[in-house]
Amino acid sequence: MRELIVELGERSYPIYIEAGLLDRMATIFMEHAISKKSPILIVTDTNIAPLYLSKVEKHLQQYGFIVHSAVVTAGEAAKSLTNLESLVGSALEFGLDRRSAIVALGGGVVGDLAGTLAATYMRGISFIQIPTTILAHDSSVGGKVAVNHPLAKNIIGAFHQPQFVLYDLNTIQSLPLREVKAGLSEVVKHGFIWDESFVSWCEENVSNLLQLDAESLGYALYNGCSVKANVVSQDERENSLRAILNLGHTIGHALEAVAGYGELLHGEAISIGMVGSAMLAVRYGVDEQVYTRTKALLEQLGLPTSIPAHFDVDAIMRAMMHDKKFREGHMVFVVPTAMGTVEIKENVPVSWVREIVEQLKREAS
Amino acid sequence: MRELIVELGERSYPIYIEAGLLDRMATIFMEHAISKKSPILIVTDTNIAPLYLSKVEKHLQQYGFIVHSAVVTAGEAAKSLTNLESLVGSALEFGLDRRSAIVALGGGVVGDLAGTLAATYMRGISFIQIPTTILAHDSSVGGKVAVNHPLAKNIIGAFHQPQFVLYDLNTIQSLPLREVKAGLSEVVKHGFIWDESFVSWCEENVSNLLQLDAESLGYALYNGCSVKANVVSQDERENSLRAILNLGHTIGHALEAVAGYGELLHGEAISIGMVGSAMLAVRYGVDEQVYTRTKALLEQLGLPTSIPAHFDVDAIMRAMMHDKKFREGHMVFVVPTAMGTVEIKENVPVSWVREIVEQLKREAS
Ligand SMILES: NC(=O)c1ccc[n+]([C@@H]2O[C@H](COP(=O)([O-])OP(=O)(O)OC[C@H]3O[C@@H](n4cnc5c(N)ncnc54)[C@H](O)[C@@H]3O)[C@@H](O)[C@H]2O)c1
Ligand SMILES: NC(=O)c1ccc[n+]([C@@H]2O[C@H](COP(=O)([O-])OP(=O)(O)OC[C@H]3O[C@@H](n4cnc5c(N)ncnc54)[C@H](O)[C@@H]3O)[C@@H](O)[C@H]2O)c1
Ligand SMILES: [Zn+2]
Ligand SMILES: [Zn+2]
Repeated sequence: MRELIVELGERSYPIYIEAGLLDRMATIFMEHAISKKSPILIVTDTNIAPLYLSKVEKHLQQYGFIVHSAVVTAGEAAKSLTNLESLVGSALEFGLDRRSAIVALGGGVVGDLAGTLAATYMRGISFIQIPTTILAHDSSVGGKVAVNHPLAKNIIGAFHQPQFVLYDLNTIQSLPLREVKAGLSEVVKHGFIWDESFVSWCEENVSNLLQLDAESLGYALYNGCSVKANVVSQDERENSLRAILNLGHTIGHALEAVAGYGELLHGEAISIGMVGSAMLAVRYGVDEQVYTRTKALLEQLGLPTSIPAHFDVDAIMRAMMHDKKFREGHMVFVVPTAMGTVEIKENVPVSWVREIVEQLKREAS
Repeated sequence: MRELIVELGERSYPIYIEAGLLDRMATIFMEHAISKKSPILIVTDTNIAPLYLSKVEKHLQQYGFIVHSAVVTAGEAAKSLTNLESLVGSALEFGLDRRSAIVALGGGVVGDLAGTLAATYMRGISFIQIPTTILAHDSSVGGKVAVNHPLAKNIIGAFHQPQFVLYDLNTIQSLPLREVKAGLSEVVKHGFIWDESFVSWCEENVSNLLQLDAESLGYALYNGCSVKANVVSQDERENSLRAILNLGHTIGHALEAVAGYGELLHGEAISIGMVGSAMLAVRYGVDEQVYTRTKALLEQLGLPTSIPAHFDVDAIMRAMMHDKKFREGHMVFVVPTAMGTVEIKENVPVSWVREIVEQLKREAS
């Protein structure tokens, strides 16, 4: 079993990564002194419930835990205050108290929603994450939890670190391939910002990763989590360093905002955004190799690296303006300085960004 | 000006108490480096807005702050997720960012709602409290913020300490007398649990307090806040000591639950509850004086000290059961050990509690 400690002083916690953890997780619950007297609430979604919920419930019950569950409709829309209110209702009905734990069984959506519940129910109770997507390796480090407002994503939330994270690699087997690829986009992002040798390893293991070979997947998730843990340990509340995690996200978020619903997954949008950042790097005099390697790896992973032809450049630029990263004709961007390192440029000319967006779009045809 | 520091390590903050602070608070905002570039949002209610809002807005604007406001309908029902969502909408529209501050201008209701907004908006931004009720001296110490769920009060929230608290004693002048008395109930509670000399001072200053003499009021609020600050400094997250703050609240909460809407204010309910706790103390062998002094002081303050005749004893007992303080025929109670000190009794026989509730009710007739 791989084990990684996210170092956050008294809020430090471990991430356990292995195939088959769902079958022996009760032991880990007991090691972490999760109460058998206070009810546990598992939160999951309509896709994951039929696959894993009853297994998890039965296993924990067998070891004497009091287990309840709540299932929300799969999809980003689940991250709402309405769902939060109804989950609080369930928690009250099931009698959850201050010693209870909330378990998120699912991807980033379930993690964020259940995490917000755990952060706010009775002003904060224990939180356990059982990620079932690759992308959720990202949300399992750093304690950010949030729900959406009709006017903005992730705007209502908290920093609430989990007690521990259980990554059962077997659950990834049922993940749709498109979600696999989108998740790998954030995994390689962690290489791009921090660790050239991990990027090289990814380049050599593309097909193992896409085939969900357990050993390769475990190694990749361990390394992705490690990079994020390193960054977050140095900047828990996102005051400075943590911003480097946004590589590819400025353009990526704008693309998500402009795209029709469901057209681009988050990981796909930031894949395009990371190519854009690499183009920017070249303008700043960074070796062209950074651009070619970035683009090649993402392409091999089956991720989009250009903006679909029907996207409107003006709309994308407007979406970025809205993102408040404009300051008097300049933007803030995370830009590679070499493969495996990045820096934050505070004064990127808007004209350059526009040219890059146009170029990203031209390459689509 | 009286100034009290709530000691909470890096989350420590001052409470400033004086008549007329609203006219010179901009200086304090600047001393605390509140941003003049990021908009501030003042949250208040429909009773307070006509009295103080434009004054506060103009004053801050004069000093260059960017000020917006949101007014919620006065009353406990304002503490809802619905209002939270609409306040987040306002915050977004007004362009509040991570350097912005939320200002609560009002009593405990506005404080709890605005505090929950500050705790969760963008995962937590600055919070400033301007309490305008006596009861809010209680909510201005300790960082507890919360909104209600249809099934339970204060169940969705956080610990989010303010940057500072500004108590302008002049604002208390417009507070309805009944609210004044109810607020004084929590003030003397802080004496009962911690400080016999402060209880004596209250006994000697009842009429000054009821007349809202600024010097007496300032002294009383300073001492009430001090006691709570002492307790909270030792137990920020309510793991142990903080429980003594619940003197009178077990019976008090049950009475609030059973009472018709608006029949009993919180301070009134706990006044009755504190008399009940003193009765319990006598059963445990504490000097009868504790009971007589407790009751006499509350009566002099014009607070109820018995349960109105039409209340149903069974309903009160059921409400306490619901409160989960029952454990196999026993209840947890905060009980005086002498005037100015209390202890937590884990095993109070339910039969004793019932007898005391009956006695409190008999005394009404
Ligand atoms: N908190 C953070 O730090 C953080 C970081 C990154 C992303 N996020 C959030 O994460 C969310 C995206 O996460 P996601 O990509 O995991 O999305 P998701 O949770 O919506 O999962 C993607 C889809 O796969 C399904 N699914 C999940 N696991 C499955 C499995 N094992 N087998 C079959 N189907 C499965 C889900 O039902 C869903 O339809 C976004 O809301 C984003 O804001 C949060
Ligand atoms: N967070 C905490 O630690 C904490 C502690 C105690 C109580 N509380 C909460 O505080 C709330 C009760 O607080 P409250 O008693 O201040 O109630 P409140 O805020 O509802 O104020 C009482 C009434 O007085 C009005 N009012 C307020 N200031 C006024 C003024 N200066 N002049 C005229 N009218 C004024 C209000 O509009 C309201 O009608 C409850 O919701 C309770 O849960 C929280
Ligand atoms: Zn991302
Ligand atoms: Zn109280």
